[in-house]
Amino acid sequence: MNKKAKTAITPTRQEDYPEWYQQVIKNADLAENSPVRGCMVIKPWGYTLWENMQRGLDKMFKDTGHQNAYFPLFIPMSFLEKEAEHVEGFAKECAVVTHHRLEPNPDGTGLRPAGPLEEPLIVRPTSETIIGAMYAKWVQSYRDLPIKINQWANVVRWEMRTRLFLRTAEFLWQEGHTVHATEQEAVDETYQMLDVYAQFAEEQMAVPVIKGEKTAGERFPGADMTVSIEAMMQDRKALQAGTSHFLGQNFAKAQDISFQDQDGNVSHAWTTSWGVSTRLIGALIMTHADDDGMVIPPRIAPAHAVILPIYRDVSQRAEVLEYCKNLKAELETQVYGGRVLEIEIDDRDLRGGEKKWHHVKRGVPIRIEVGPKDIAKDAVFMARRDTGEHSSIPRAELLSEATNILASIQDNLFQRALKMREENTTEITNEADFRAYFTPKDVKNPEIHAGFARCYFSSEEEVQPLLNELKVTIRNIPLENNDEPGTCFLTGKTAAKKAVFAKAY
Amino acid sequence: MNKKAKTAITPTRQEDYPEWYQQVIKNADLAENSPVRGCMVIKPWGYTLWENMQRGLDKMFKDTGHQNAYFPLFIPMSFLEKEAEHVEGFAKECAVVTHHRLEPNPDGTGLRPAGPLEEPLIVRPTSETIIGAMYAKWVQSYRDLPIKINQWANVVRWEMRTRLFLRTAEFLWQEGHTVHATEQEAVDETYQMLDVYAQFAEEQMAVPVIKGEKTAGERFPGADMTVSIEAMMQDRKALQAGTSHFLGQNFAKAQDISFQDQDGNVSHAWTTSWGVSTRLIGALIMTHADDDGMVIPPRIAPAHAVILPIYRDVSQRAEVLEYCKNLKAELETQVYGGRVLEIEIDDRDLRGGEKKWHHVKRGVPIRIEVGPKDIAKDAVFMARRDTGEHSSIPRAELLSEATNILASIQDNLFQRALKMREENTTEITNEADFRAYFTPKDVKNPEIHAGFARCYFSSEEEVQPLLNELKVTIRNIPLENNDEPGTCFLTGKTAAKKAVFAKAY
Repeated sequence: MNKKAKTAITPTRQEDYPEWYQQVIKNADLAENSPVRGCMVIKPWGYTLWENMQRGLDKMFKDTGHQNAYFPLFIPMSFLEKEAEHVEGFAKECAVVTHHRLEPNPDGTGLRPAGPLEEPLIVRPTSETIIGAMYAKWVQSYRDLPIKINQWANVVRWEMRTRLFLRTAEFLWQEGHTVHATEQEAVDETYQMLDVYAQFAEEQMAVPVIKGEKTAGERFPGADMTVSIEAMMQDRKALQAGTSHFLGQNFAKAQDISFQDQDGNVSHAWTTSWGVSTRLIGALIMTHADDDGMVIPPRIAPAHAVILPIYRDVSQRAEVLEYCKNLKAELETQVYGGRVLEIEIDDRDLRGGEKKWHHVKRGVPIRIEVGPKDIAKDAVFMARRDTGEHSSIPRAELLSEATNILASIQDNLFQRALKMREENTTEITNEADFRAYFTPKDVKNPEIHAGFARCYFSSEEEVQPLLNELKVTIRNIPLENNDEPGTCFLTGKTAAKKAVFAKAY
Repeated sequence: MNKKAKTAITPTRQEDYPEWYQQVIKNADLAENSPVRGCMVIKPWGYTLWENMQRGLDKMFKDTGHQNAYFPLFIPMSFLEKEAEHVEGFAKECAVVTHHRLEPNPDGTGLRPAGPLEEPLIVRPTSETIIGAMYAKWVQSYRDLPIKINQWANVVRWEMRTRLFLRTAEFLWQEGHTVHATEQEAVDETYQMLDVYAQFAEEQMAVPVIKGEKTAGERFPGADMTVSIEAMMQDRKALQAGTSHFLGQNFAKAQDISFQDQDGNVSHAWTTSWGVSTRLIGALIMTHADDDGMVIPPRIAPAHAVILPIYRDVSQRAEVLEYCKNLKAELETQVYGGRVLEIEIDDRDLRGGEKKWHHVKRGVPIRIEVGPKDIAKDAVFMARRDTGEHSSIPRAELLSEATNILASIQDNLFQRALKMREENTTEITNEADFRAYFTPKDVKNPEIHAGFARCYFSSEEEVQPLLNELKVTIRNIPLENNDEPGTCFLTGKTAAKKAVFAKAY
């Protein structure tokens, strides 16, 4: 590859953003489509990202008093029907199990479903109804509350148009489901978990997010309130990265989750649910990757650094490899972000350039190259994936600075993404500007959009026709810096809050 | 509860073993049946056991060079048909997805499946066929081999008679799937993973196991060789706790997983698969639990010890609780079995007896009680769950001895289980003894069986009628201490190996 003329990924973001996204995933070996419609295969490098996200989130869930459990994959069709809005929201995209065995076709060729079920089962699209059925049994008294349980699981929502990590028929996620004696406690839980998600996204994934409340039209089916974190991708579209739902007493009433309080009165409980999914990997890619491929923040990187031994012939191999192994061992005594450093040595028999670009495209934060000349001066060649900066540095300096360099990469990625979002966010106060902002200007790059608009709006119903026309959505109503009333950009009426408007995934 | 007269679990193992098993699970709050036929809910205390098993196994998989990935939940029906024995083995117990949405019934009441799929999808009962389809794409050259991937996932096998943890329609497991260039390498992998399972069962779960090869009739559908670990439960039945399969070239041929070697020749690869499941929790319960409930080996216990603050009135509470918290903090600086000690304090407002028995029934390895009198002499009351031994010991001694006590509990549980197995294993050399051994003697306890019989046998076909009659199975042909030929207990013919015969779960 000619480094000067080309990028490692073709096309670039500017040339064809959606295709660039697919190519980053392919070149980093993160995932691929499977022969099963809409279902993806998450490959080892991508799955380790998910494992690292799980580890970080799981610790935060446990630190806030939650426990893990596991509930059935299947939901009886009648359970889904209990909450009217809920079934409305999910009935159109359910995988339905109707039979429990296969038998040979009468003509002897191939198989057909047999053993019809009395009641069809739905593969869970989310588990409020099956978990609620258990909670109704478990909750009798105020002493049984709160229940704070999380589940790591796969879910299925039948999607017609799928895209790796962003929208797939099956995806992996966690879903928290809690039950509380009071409304206030459930509302507090809802916000607490949103804070957990925001902190995780910003501190671990280096993805800046806006915390806010969804409008009524964008709420989770059956919720009284949905709050979300929204991130800006590099095409300036928004991606909803996590949601937390205050379900009021809706599910408790539909499923009779009720308890006797200290005075002997029986009331319905208050519930919440909250989730993030493998979609976060899509957010990670579209926040940090560049035209040379994946860029992974050190705190969730499967490997913090890769060491490439460089030698011309076998006679040099032993010495170089020994030096690399010692370096790896010394680096792996260090801790960054609560994790012992993980260092790879890539001694495969490949051309140096091919090997280098392999790790660039995979997004390893630090690349170290060691050859006989480096060893002679007890130095190494080091390159940062985020900035491309590279230099020869003394081995001792690498060892003393390694965790600082990782911290600097982590911080740089966050600041770079934040700057990008701020540069592409504007305040809009009238319809003409709004229309202009969301009308594509560059016909050659129709997939690079304008960005976020923060606008006062008086009512979701009144702005909806314009949003439909422009294919723009209200992402959320930010929770922070949003207390001053103003004037609706469209109607001129007084409006209590600003919302973030954007095109979205 | 009257300790002298009763046990915490009713009935006892002797009185009604199957019901005792259900009651241990219920009283330890490990799991329960769900409203979905055959599917269980794994509750937090039970799920933490699974998490600890996952952590231990996952490390061993990674230390032996495996990576995790994730493959689709669904398998197209046609994929299952490719390997003849495989489909024969699983077609009778498949959950079949035939529709992708729900629509209202024509009369407006309730829902019905809609959107029929062109090809039905099977919820994976195991993933050889879907993973093999990906491997066929990924493997081109010898440079692509070996592939050593593991998946943590849920699977579904429609079972008519289910029992918590032992046999459920949905269960959680891991499935390793590897591809190799040579037969020898695949065979070595098969045995290596059996060793991993055996080591995990014995060292972490304190469950002694017999490693051996399955007879042809008991092999995994489509395998050339299946090896298993078998454990003896306290009713002296065998439980298959893990299996590792050498699949030969069967799946590689069915799915065309082939590669070009260094000389340019193309051949089919050699594959393996291996798995353990939440069934291991059933093995754990039936190996260690007693008539007072669950007993958990320290190395996989969710908590190593529980501290119960004992006080009569609120005036004593602060001092006692402070003492307990300090004790917890000091214990949690210690490490046992590679894990920092996890100590619970149970300060709930419950009667002391109720609280004590709660933790006995949950199986926490060490129970510590602290009251004002203990504090006065800087001592604590300590009880071991495994032996029931209890005494007052100086605080300093508890701190210095804690990890030794845990090691002693772990070892005692293993030795106790091993002794139980050895006392209930016999060598049998003729049919009359075999019949007598496997004919229930105690009509009051039909569920307590004789145990294991190690017998020479000349052929599976020849012994099968007798086994069917007695409801006995060949568990496996032990790999160790089994090189001397002998005489078949049934036919009198020369036999190369002994097998373990037993009634089984």
